[in-house]
Amino acid sequence: MTRETADLTEDETLAIPAIAAVPEDLEDMALEDDYGLAPEYVEMVIDAADRGDSERLRELLGALHPADVADLMGFLTADYREEVIEHLNPEDLAEVLSELDTNLREEVLESVPSATLAKALEELDSDDAADVIDDLEDDKRGEVLAAMPDAERAAIETTLSYGDETAGRLMQREVLAAPQFWTVGQTIDHVRSAGDELPELFFDVYIVDPSYKPVGGAPISRLLRAPRETLLADLMEPVTEIPVTMDQEDVAFIFDKYHLISAPVVDTGGRLVGQITVDDVVGVIQEEAEEDILALAGGSDAGRDAGVIDIVRSRLPWLLLNLVTEAVAVSAIAFFQDEIAKLVALAVLMPIVSSLGGNAGTQTLAVAVRALAARELSSANAWRVIRREATVGAVNGVTLALVMGFATFIFYHNQPHAFRLAIVVGLALVANIVTAAIGGILAPLALEKMGRDPAVSSSVFVTFLTDFMGFFAVLTIAALILL
Amino acid sequence: MTRETADLTEDETLAIPAIAAVPEDLEDMALEDDYGLAPEYVEMVIDAADRGDSERLRELLGALHPADVADLMGFLTADYREEVIEHLNPEDLAEVLSELDTNLREEVLESVPSATLAKALEELDSDDAADVIDDLEDDKRGEVLAAMPDAERAAIETTLSYGDETAGRLMQREVLAAPQFWTVGQTIDHVRSAGDELPELFFDVYIVDPSYKPVGGAPISRLLRAPRETLLADLMEPVTEIPVTMDQEDVAFIFDKYHLISAPVVDTGGRLVGQITVDDVVGVIQEEAEEDILALAGGSDAGRDAGVIDIVRSRLPWLLLNLVTEAVAVSAIAFFQDEIAKLVALAVLMPIVSSLGGNAGTQTLAVAVRALAARELSSANAWRVIRREATVGAVNGVTLALVMGFATFIFYHNQPHAFRLAIVVGLALVANIVTAAIGGILAPLALEKMGRDPAVSSSVFVTFLTDFMGFFAVLTIAALILL
Repeated sequence: MTRETADLTEDETLAIPAIAAVPEDLEDMALEDDYGLAPEYVEMVIDAADRGDSERLRELLGALHPADVADLMGFLTADYREEVIEHLNPEDLAEVLSELDTNLREEVLESVPSATLAKALEELDSDDAADVIDDLEDDKRGEVLAAMPDAERAAIETTLSYGDETAGRLMQREVLAAPQFWTVGQTIDHVRSAGDELPELFFDVYIVDPSYKPVGGAPISRLLRAPRETLLADLMEPVTEIPVTMDQEDVAFIFDKYHLISAPVVDTGGRLVGQITVDDVVGVIQEEAEEDILALAGGSDAGRDAGVIDIVRSRLPWLLLNLVTEAVAVSAIAFFQDEIAKLVALAVLMPIVSSLGGNAGTQTLAVAVRALAARELSSANAWRVIRREATVGAVNGVTLALVMGFATFIFYHNQPHAFRLAIVVGLALVANIVTAAIGGILAPLALEKMGRDPAVSSSVFVTFLTDFMGFFAVLTIAALILL
Repeated sequence: MTRETADLTEDETLAIPAIAAVPEDLEDMALEDDYGLAPEYVEMVIDAADRGDSERLRELLGALHPADVADLMGFLTADYREEVIEHLNPEDLAEVLSELDTNLREEVLESVPSATLAKALEELDSDDAADVIDDLEDDKRGEVLAAMPDAERAAIETTLSYGDETAGRLMQREVLAAPQFWTVGQTIDHVRSAGDELPELFFDVYIVDPSYKPVGGAPISRLLRAPRETLLADLMEPVTEIPVTMDQEDVAFIFDKYHLISAPVVDTGGRLVGQITVDDVVGVIQEEAEEDILALAGGSDAGRDAGVIDIVRSRLPWLLLNLVTEAVAVSAIAFFQDEIAKLVALAVLMPIVSSLGGNAGTQTLAVAVRALAARELSSANAWRVIRREATVGAVNGVTLALVMGFATFIFYHNQPHAFRLAIVVGLALVANIVTAAIGGILAPLALEKMGRDPAVSSSVFVTFLTDFMGFFAVLTIAALILL
């Protein structure tokens, strides 16, 4: 079967003559307006797989960018994924594997023979290849590495020797470096003859001293602009060196702050060992932002295609912790059972005070976590920000207290204690919203100071604080002035 | 006063001899380990400003990257900011202005004379200059534009004519374009002679047809690698064209998905009008992720240096909305006041059921919002994901119900209805967690389907749903089997 002739029976041809007459523009059909994969296209792939129509499947996959094939895999069930993988050519297979989420990749890798895999991975830059190898099970990893050329195996093993989520893992070892005394012309001639030593794409030339330490860099667009006889030493600017052990979150922060396109990575001796390019960093920025969102929500993402058990594992511990803190918070209510029995209105109003406090705390928390991640909150302005948050809490608290106090008075106006009930609720609300504001800023600041991730445990603490305070404030103030 | 001679009185020199003897490495002192600005450095700047020591101030500012000066401004109060601005040279001023947050920038711009500003902005690419101009008040905007050269004014006015947060605003008009029949050598010679028409940095050459429509592109590292006589037509690859009206969120998604470094922007006629580079997109990705975090928390970021009133305005509406929804939710409690008076334990246990439901709902919601933003959730897999979330809800719900039911039984074991109370709480918990899971996935899906931002209003709805369900389930089940 060739790719040129359609694999249709006569009946099928008759049934869908439009396809034969007007060539489909599969590429235009693949994506929706928001550049997500079109559900209809997923259906077409499933259809072709169901019919066992290899020709059509290859055609459909061929019209997709590898990133879209990876995306497609996420929309398919495991059986169809295996079918798709079998119909990819080796170059596309490598690209698709490097685009897949870890949990999908682990599953897909099981069905790819080691030899095919070794061949495919040679197409990738060392960082991407190492990423894929990292997801293999130990036996298979050995097999695949053994089937690769020595140089590439060594490169991948070096990359894997760096810690997870460090600059060493993000970097590619291929890099364009030149001594200061070279001219632009010499550098360009070197590039023309260098071939595979250079990365597939590069954006800067790093200028190194004789011990291979970076002393500067220049964007290659500046090389192109300069006369051939210009010395690199005259073109270069200072570069931001990334230590190979730096956490990827810091790498992303630096790229964002200084608008870097690529940066040299240096070992502990300060020698150039590779480069990180911004396209790798964009992925990290997305990842870290997602982690913050999910951590604030109390949980983590088990991944796109995770099973029920994995998802339960990622969420149940937080819910159990929440159960424990809530049990402590409601002990305030249990303590005042007699007061509630006397005045059930308290049981109605308490949850409102708690809930508003929780929301106000979450608002402050989200802003604080964001500001910490952007390094916009430090001891240089912590007191100013804390004072400001407390003031905002007071203003919001008083406003909400007036509204809720008034509503309470109206709702219970035919009861003798309506006015005092409104006062109780109003005072409790102010107390809880101010508490929420201060807790919402202090909790993440304290966690950051302790070297912990402020996004991860702040929300549990703030929720506990505002729930407890909501119950406790309503009930103690009621005990004092109402009952 | 020159920059070379220290502007110290004799006393000051005697008081701090170390500075004169050992040259400080200011650049090393400026940043902390996490690349945030060191609080001590902020202190040094405040000190120099307090002493009116212009020389020292210039020295301190000169050691900082413009992005770090912008960062510094965020840590200072308004008076000090004005002082700092006065001590920047025009080139740095332009860079610093383009790095500042909008609300800080608006304030700073008021104190910069129009002529200085016009001069500074000429240093920037058209997109960055337009960004700054956009923050000026109408009168001043006219003055500054009038003081600029015609060509630059026209470029900025064109940029400003595109909608906020569109590709047109992100793009720079300067771009390297060449016809298909040019060779690599011709292209490089063109770059060497073109000068200011080209952007300061560029990463791709776009190949255009005679009507200036892009037909392909090639990274300049590939130009460098190829022999001079190679035709551009033989080097080029398909490019992803960005329509000038595209939303910046979609632009960011495409850059991330296809690992783009730069992309051509085309007008409605398909003609090349500019390019977007990845460094602009990194900022957008950060921005959009922050918006999602803050929207999920119910609020928006009033900005780093916002006053109390602005912050209150960004948060109070959400709290008032929350007050209304809570009032509706607790009406379930008000309806069952007699049951609660009979059995106050219900008032103790209800908030736990509500709170756990709220947390479970938020977990699902955060994952769903993230998946929607990544285009990983569409009608192609919606039912599968909904079924999975419901199953996860059931598993988590049953587990939590067993734990909480057992704890309830132990806590109330000396009361006659302890066992039935445990059953009530357990059943209510399962009902609420399953409701939370389904609501947490359906709410964002429905909002997305309606073309709304799923992050913005989902959490209000899910919180209302789980609070109401928490109260309602406990009380109705109690009314049925307990009372």
